[in-house]
Amino acid sequence: ADVAYLRSILPSTTEDAFFDYLATLDTSEVTVSAVPEGSVVFARVPFLQVKGPLLVVQLLESTLLCLVNYASLVATNAARFRLLAGPDVKLVEMGLRRAQGPDGALSASKYSYIGGFDYTSNVLAGKLYGIPVRGTIAHSFIVSFTSLEEVQLRKLPPLAGGEPVDLPALAESWLQRVCELLQTPPEKANRGELAAFTSYAIAFPRNFQGLLDTYCVRRSGLPNFCAVALALHQLGYQAIGVRLDSGDLAQQSKEVRRVLRACGAHFQVPWFETIPIAVSNDISEQSLEEFSREGSEIDMIGVGTNLVTCPLQPSLGCIYKLVEVNGSPCLKLTEDEEKMTIPGSKTIYRLYDAAGHPFMDLMALEEEPSPSAGQELVVHVLGRLGEASKVVPTTVEPLHRTYFRDGQMCEPLPGLPEVKSHAQASLSLLNPAHRRLHEPQPYPVAVSERLHRLLAELRQASQ
Amino acid sequence: ADVAYLRSILPSTTEDAFFDYLATLDTSEVTVSAVPEGSVVFARVPFLQVKGPLLVVQLLESTLLCLVNYASLVATNAARFRLLAGPDVKLVEMGLRRAQGPDGALSASKYSYIGGFDYTSNVLAGKLYGIPVRGTIAHSFIVSFTSLEEVQLRKLPPLAGGEPVDLPALAESWLQRVCELLQTPPEKANRGELAAFTSYAIAFPRNFQGLLDTYCVRRSGLPNFCAVALALHQLGYQAIGVRLDSGDLAQQSKEVRRVLRACGAHFQVPWFETIPIAVSNDISEQSLEEFSREGSEIDMIGVGTNLVTCPLQPSLGCIYKLVEVNGSPCLKLTEDEEKMTIPGSKTIYRLYDAAGHPFMDLMALEEEPSPSAGQELVVHVLGRLGEASKVVPTTVEPLHRTYFRDGQMCEPLPGLPEVKSHAQASLSLLNPAHRRLHEPQPYPVAVSERLHRLLAELRQASQ
Repeated sequence: ADVAYLRSILPSTTEDAFFDYLATLDTSEVTVSAVPEGSVVFARVPFLQVKGPLLVVQLLESTLLCLVNYASLVATNAARFRLLAGPDVKLVEMGLRRAQGPDGALSASKYSYIGGFDYTSNVLAGKLYGIPVRGTIAHSFIVSFTSLEEVQLRKLPPLAGGEPVDLPALAESWLQRVCELLQTPPEKANRGELAAFTSYAIAFPRNFQGLLDTYCVRRSGLPNFCAVALALHQLGYQAIGVRLDSGDLAQQSKEVRRVLRACGAHFQVPWFETIPIAVSNDISEQSLEEFSREGSEIDMIGVGTNLVTCPLQPSLGCIYKLVEVNGSPCLKLTEDEEKMTIPGSKTIYRLYDAAGHPFMDLMALEEEPSPSAGQELVVHVLGRLGEASKVVPTTVEPLHRTYFRDGQMCEPLPGLPEVKSHAQASLSLLNPAHRRLHEPQPYPVAVSERLHRLLAELRQASQ
Repeated sequence: ADVAYLRSILPSTTEDAFFDYLATLDTSEVTVSAVPEGSVVFARVPFLQVKGPLLVVQLLESTLLCLVNYASLVATNAARFRLLAGPDVKLVEMGLRRAQGPDGALSASKYSYIGGFDYTSNVLAGKLYGIPVRGTIAHSFIVSFTSLEEVQLRKLPPLAGGEPVDLPALAESWLQRVCELLQTPPEKANRGELAAFTSYAIAFPRNFQGLLDTYCVRRSGLPNFCAVALALHQLGYQAIGVRLDSGDLAQQSKEVRRVLRACGAHFQVPWFETIPIAVSNDISEQSLEEFSREGSEIDMIGVGTNLVTCPLQPSLGCIYKLVEVNGSPCLKLTEDEEKMTIPGSKTIYRLYDAAGHPFMDLMALEEEPSPSAGQELVVHVLGRLGEASKVVPTTVEPLHRTYFRDGQMCEPLPGLPEVKSHAQASLSLLNPAHRRLHEPQPYPVAVSERLHRLLAELRQASQ
């Protein structure tokens, strides 16, 4: 069908033999080597090398770029959020509504997870990729209730067994006590919200959580949540969290924590003060910086739009370039050294210092001997190719593995959890000077002396 | 399988009856009305209304938002490019490499087309949606040749029939004449590029096009193109275009047109001067403004990254809100009037002035009688709800149609070409003051007097 379609759009003079040839195309002569998925890579370093018949590898260009660009972009963006959030805060991806359609959203969930997120709110991504899913109740669920009379199933048995209790009534009596403690008028606590919380608690007594900002957090959401959570506690259950979705999230988290502590102390419910506080609402890198500057009490952060659409840099510009034809290295000339391709089939090495941090990526021609740990190397750093530098790596790591040889997978592909832990390990190895998000120290990428000579020859030859 | 997965992630205390219930869920009680696809819509106006059991319509929220948000965003972005480019320039979508994975890219191709693009470079989108596809030769194809000896099939028969001719030799002789005319040294015209052009021309003699910037446009790409196109002309064929992919595209297009005109005049080939000039290379709205400011000779523009990732606004924030439960209108309160939902089941009208331009969208309660053309109406414009205004529409158009009633499609969905022409017609109806891209006049959105009263009552009741 694909060939029939191509026949319909190509000029009518196209030879039949060409379409016959297309029908025989396969990847049996293609070999792909790449850095392991999740590896940190730097600009100008090839992270994927494809060898094979020119026509076939050319057909792979758009497909490979499409698969790599957004995946790398969003994994990188997620890694930045993880670095800012620190290791203890839980991060939830919730970008489905703003991603590029259903499959764009699935890619976003998958690669956010690799980049360092803990959960996704995309249930299909959970099912397809085994990513843990998390969510909270919706504003619309809360708005759909107006009074406690609407709670249809009212009874909840205590955890330890025994006579079921009328939870709405119990919650209402707790609301009085909570409002007294917090010195807030009980009539300001919205009864529809209380009804929604109670209904939820009866359905999920071990998993009760509250969304606090449908009405007023301080006078309604928080007292209602505490009332239902204390009623549940009386029956032996523990609430599992709250969510804030508007306003000054850092300040509110502190206020919420203060109230949870006060309730915990006053009503002698010690676990109350550690109830996890989740936040959402257009969270960006800047939000995370604010949270840490203001010293928040936030335990979990949901990030959607700014994670999946990467507004700081909405696209990644990986390119796919021809570097060798029929065994001869080739070069796309340009005025701009930054855009010059590096010719030839190459082996890529990552050089480590004595502290275990990578300090340079080195491209060498495939036929060159591998650099040795502890031995001095002459290299030329991109951006200042004119000068030779000498480096002595403590460890030398070849970055690429051959995953696909002559049309066959030849190295098992790691699962998502392995890719994720490799990504996190790869990031943590970086020197903090290279890893920091603001004005990181540039990471040098170099070519070997032989590759440097080849580059010079080819430039001269084509001028 | 979905229910089994949900069972595995929901608390173990979840009742079996709930999962049994999930298995019976369908949309047989759901009704969806919407503006026809491709309609221009304004902020705050509901363009889709969903009625049905609360649980079911709630489950549709993320799906609908995911399907609508990016589609509307990229169609809007495409429409902006179309407005800037004017009606005569051809626009080609080429975002596959930078979109959110394969399906994100397909969505981008489809909705760019609706927004006003003419072609896509995504062949799969062409096949799946019937969008016309276009492309040009690649830099790598050109780089893969180094000399004319590499052209393997050399002979091309004239269009009118007769003895096949050695095209590389013919092109090389034309190159001498072109270089003489242009006063540029023939040895600066890269022979690999000439070989690539010749090979392409032999394969597609009626569809020859040149990518001019692999080496130097002026000294290599352009003379080589003219040489091959003139050689083809001698055999009866017409070249179909050139592409520029770097540098100052507007200036270069003028230089290229000048040379094409000079060649056309000198060698008496009149069609030469109208050879279409296509450009690409990170084209943005700003690029299009520059082209029109500098008076370019560009006939076709390829837009990729800045079309599909919408960097000026990388996401669209459509929301899905509960406005009525059990026949009672409801309201999510907020401090911010801009974010307040408009309660109740509504009918939406677009009001037109005597010139045929829409001048206001009006929301009224479903049970209200329709406003009449030529009759004075009292309305309250959002943003200044306090004041009543009077308007007299020349035409009144109900915006929504019911597409899905009680689980059944009840209005045939238009095909892509119809949606596209509806979008273009909908845009062209706009008053230019509303349509302009910079500081457009805000388009007023209003509520009927009855809806305004309901809004006031509900706000009062919940305070």
